[in-house]
Amino acid sequence: MSLERAKLRWNGWGPLNAPDPLAEKGEAAWGWLGGLLGRESLPETPPVALDQTRVPPGRLAPALIDELGAIVGRAHVATDDPSRAVNARGQSYHDLLWLRSGALDVAPDVVLAPANAEEVGRILTLAARLGLAIVPRGGGTSVVGGVTARAGADHLGVAVLDLTRLCRVHEISEDDRLARVDAGIDGPGLESALQRRGYTLGHFPQSFEFSTLGGWIAHAGAGQQCARYGRPRDWLASARVATPGGLWETERAPASAAGPRLGDLLVGSEGALGVITDASVRLAPKPETRRFGAFLFKSFAEGVAAHRAIIQAGVPVATLRLSDAAETAFYQAFGAVGAPPPGLTRRLAMAYARRRGYLDQPASLIIMTDGALAEAEDHMAQAQRLARGSGGLSLGAGPGERWYHGRFHGPYLRDPLMNRGVGVDTLETATRWSELIPLHQAVHDALNEALGGRGVVFGHVSHAYVDGASLYFTYLFARDPTDPVAQWRRVKARASEAIIAMGGTISHHHGVGEDHRPWIAAEKGAAGITLLRAAKTGLDPASILNPGKLLPDD
Amino acid sequence: MSLERAKLRWNGWGPLNAPDPLAEKGEAAWGWLGGLLGRESLPETPPVALDQTRVPPGRLAPALIDELGAIVGRAHVATDDPSRAVNARGQSYHDLLWLRSGALDVAPDVVLAPANAEEVGRILTLAARLGLAIVPRGGGTSVVGGVTARAGADHLGVAVLDLTRLCRVHEISEDDRLARVDAGIDGPGLESALQRRGYTLGHFPQSFEFSTLGGWIAHAGAGQQCARYGRPRDWLASARVATPGGLWETERAPASAAGPRLGDLLVGSEGALGVITDASVRLAPKPETRRFGAFLFKSFAEGVAAHRAIIQAGVPVATLRLSDAAETAFYQAFGAVGAPPPGLTRRLAMAYARRRGYLDQPASLIIMTDGALAEAEDHMAQAQRLARGSGGLSLGAGPGERWYHGRFHGPYLRDPLMNRGVGVDTLETATRWSELIPLHQAVHDALNEALGGRGVVFGHVSHAYVDGASLYFTYLFARDPTDPVAQWRRVKARASEAIIAMGGTISHHHGVGEDHRPWIAAEKGAAGITLLRAAKTGLDPASILNPGKLLPDD
Repeated sequence: MSLERAKLRWNGWGPLNAPDPLAEKGEAAWGWLGGLLGRESLPETPPVALDQTRVPPGRLAPALIDELGAIVGRAHVATDDPSRAVNARGQSYHDLLWLRSGALDVAPDVVLAPANAEEVGRILTLAARLGLAIVPRGGGTSVVGGVTARAGADHLGVAVLDLTRLCRVHEISEDDRLARVDAGIDGPGLESALQRRGYTLGHFPQSFEFSTLGGWIAHAGAGQQCARYGRPRDWLASARVATPGGLWETERAPASAAGPRLGDLLVGSEGALGVITDASVRLAPKPETRRFGAFLFKSFAEGVAAHRAIIQAGVPVATLRLSDAAETAFYQAFGAVGAPPPGLTRRLAMAYARRRGYLDQPASLIIMTDGALAEAEDHMAQAQRLARGSGGLSLGAGPGERWYHGRFHGPYLRDPLMNRGVGVDTLETATRWSELIPLHQAVHDALNEALGGRGVVFGHVSHAYVDGASLYFTYLFARDPTDPVAQWRRVKARASEAIIAMGGTISHHHGVGEDHRPWIAAEKGAAGITLLRAAKTGLDPASILNPGKLLPDD
Repeated sequence: MSLERAKLRWNGWGPLNAPDPLAEKGEAAWGWLGGLLGRESLPETPPVALDQTRVPPGRLAPALIDELGAIVGRAHVATDDPSRAVNARGQSYHDLLWLRSGALDVAPDVVLAPANAEEVGRILTLAARLGLAIVPRGGGTSVVGGVTARAGADHLGVAVLDLTRLCRVHEISEDDRLARVDAGIDGPGLESALQRRGYTLGHFPQSFEFSTLGGWIAHAGAGQQCARYGRPRDWLASARVATPGGLWETERAPASAAGPRLGDLLVGSEGALGVITDASVRLAPKPETRRFGAFLFKSFAEGVAAHRAIIQAGVPVATLRLSDAAETAFYQAFGAVGAPPPGLTRRLAMAYARRRGYLDQPASLIIMTDGALAEAEDHMAQAQRLARGSGGLSLGAGPGERWYHGRFHGPYLRDPLMNRGVGVDTLETATRWSELIPLHQAVHDALNEALGGRGVVFGHVSHAYVDGASLYFTYLFARDPTDPVAQWRRVKARASEAIIAMGGTISHHHGVGEDHRPWIAAEKGAAGITLLRAAKTGLDPASILNPGKLLPDD
């Protein structure tokens, strides 16, 4: 049930032997993409291999390494350069620029793999005494610099805590519909254990295959099916957390009026308040079946209206995903590259849609429902009725089935793109319904402008609530070969400023990490930052836990 | 839309002219109740009138009163003894012992009624500078000593902030399904404004008629229909909070991964972190209709199994309420006192139920569903199927209709009981399903033992979640005429110890206040208390906000 790190790419996504999803498209795809990005051709830009990658020298005395080894066992302490490089950073575009470059700016001094909560606690006690920074790491899939192994100026050094040995399912309680599970378990390990017993957690972020329960809680992100199964704030019942001052067991009653629910602070705590060692999570029955639907709308606004209608009517859909015109067009064109020309039926359908005005600024909505057969069908019928009522043209089950089949595939595209001089990043936000369309426009505009009109920018709405929804953007551009980090930072800043100016949140799924720190104070307000700092100082007075993440600079 | 204090009882429940609900039962009821409580007769014990009630002398200099008056206007400052007495305490049994006694142990030095958030902020800034304690007060219906106007040893004095002038509905947004409302609005004022627009908040605590939105949030309690409409943690979208350091606007995105959601800390903050001035709350459509059902079970365990099955199946009932054998028997017998003997149909039904074993240790379940007609009926049918599947005997719609009609009546019984030497209090907890029946037994036993076997103790389950449920106990006893406060404290302590020993929460609806402080550290753990203290110190460094509540003694 443990992630097998040795079988995974260290500077890219997925297993070492994952196929290149762009291979079959061949050069036609690169020519097409180069055209979109304003380039005649796209250069080969392969990464530097691990054994050729330089890391900063380790700073810890051998005696301290021995002391740490005495806690976790010598076999679970690594100080070699490859191990340090592999654990230096996460999986953001920015991280990959470093990991592929051949020279890392930061790396842990030591990587420790504790076996249980007690060992984690002993490490934290020692680290607090010595001033050793601790970066907790589950799957390491953060895309906001949440696991960058960077010490503060006052730290002795930095240790990465590899938590993937904490991967047991301790108990599944049928009466309480709860599972108590170690925080380092990965998505497939957890779901297979639950599904064997007829349950699911239902948390399926795009990183599902390689991320861990503890990371899901600490980064507060939503899964693709959160409309039905909830977010960590909903499914987290209680947790155990190692802090430098001792083990904290959060509130375990299903609900309480005994003061603020302090365990809620773990959701989004990003390793800065403590290290989650295990959690009790609420389960749902494993769905018997799934149903799919898809609709085309004449505009993003009509699609948003349909999305809102379905959610506000309380239809318990598993997934709703609305692509804007740019995303709809991009995937349409990408699908056509190198493919045979469409058959007669499809050409006729397209002509019909065009004549009725559906192809000028099309937005496309995918709907998935699940559960017992009657339930999945009833919920799909309700959602379809509302989609039609908002002007939607049904596209049948196909697009939704294809989305479901490929729902974890997105990140696999990034490595081949980066191998051909292309930059690709994503960012996301959320706001209230009444502000969603202006925010969508503002972020689109900011990204297009920052990319000098020579990028590809598209977006979708994939998580919705009674009072609002999220927006997710993907953007591709020709990488600046001289200073790609500065290029990325400039674009990121422009989009982030647009989000904050419009009152959106700086992140709906990804977290704060290092990348969103410049905007967190604007979002949380002075009192909010005071609270967060007070919580941090209370639980981590020596300030050793994941320094430089979550909180703004002092 | 504002509560009219002058028309309400100051030392009891409800309007001055509320009828005595026990009057028509006459002396037969007192004889019956005296028998249950081991007394031959119950004495007349009327309260002392307001104008005969002594309060401790005020401690604030006239110049300071003038300075406060300059903020809120002289008409909104009160220092007279009756105003100070009326605002001295809440509505717990313990509070009433003091409020009825003729001599108060504590009282505010001044009562201030600010008009808006800006005035609240100015008061807090001044109070922090001077060390004046501030007790925020909405409806004043706390039953855990949450509004006791008690200064700490270092305070200059104590001011009650009467927030009922903050009672505007600022905006109802149809797109966002949100209402932005002042915190001092009372339940009926809020619901009538929302229902005129076709919405409901759906928050109906038993105190609904006289409590306020800000109090609901600050005390984190559940309403009677929370299974469908959620608790404050679910329906609170964002809030504005006056703190001594300035106004705090909490996160407004519908969901976010930008760190912990700090606004969640307001839920259960009990006025100790700041004064909530207004809030945006999530709305639901006003239900078109309601349906009622009721079932009898052969045991509490069978009733709990039915309750659990309905909730875990996700049937969106509005209310489920399961009375234990003692509560079922008490209300049965109470209904029969002074009433004509039952007719033939009812006698036959009782005989049938008895023969089938339903009357030995009966538990009774009330079900309410609501919404559009088809929806309310469908949900009722689902719930009934599950109740029958767990061995329930249908009682028809009557018991549920009677419960709904009388759902706010409970507290009105307390004044006439207290006028006849009877003590009556309630307490509540929650735990996971697997621990519910042992916890129920332990609290029953603890209360019965503490009352020397001469009390009446009964309970029900009224709020349930996927992973567990609440338990609510009512207990009646002959009041100790010499030291009723010590008697109450002894009984309360015994029950609370039993709850904590079994791992239940010390409160599911009522809060911490002064009364549950001795047990809060055991529930929250050392790290939890560290966090809560840090949050308090961060937002209220001068420690002026509602001293002596929520947090344990230093």
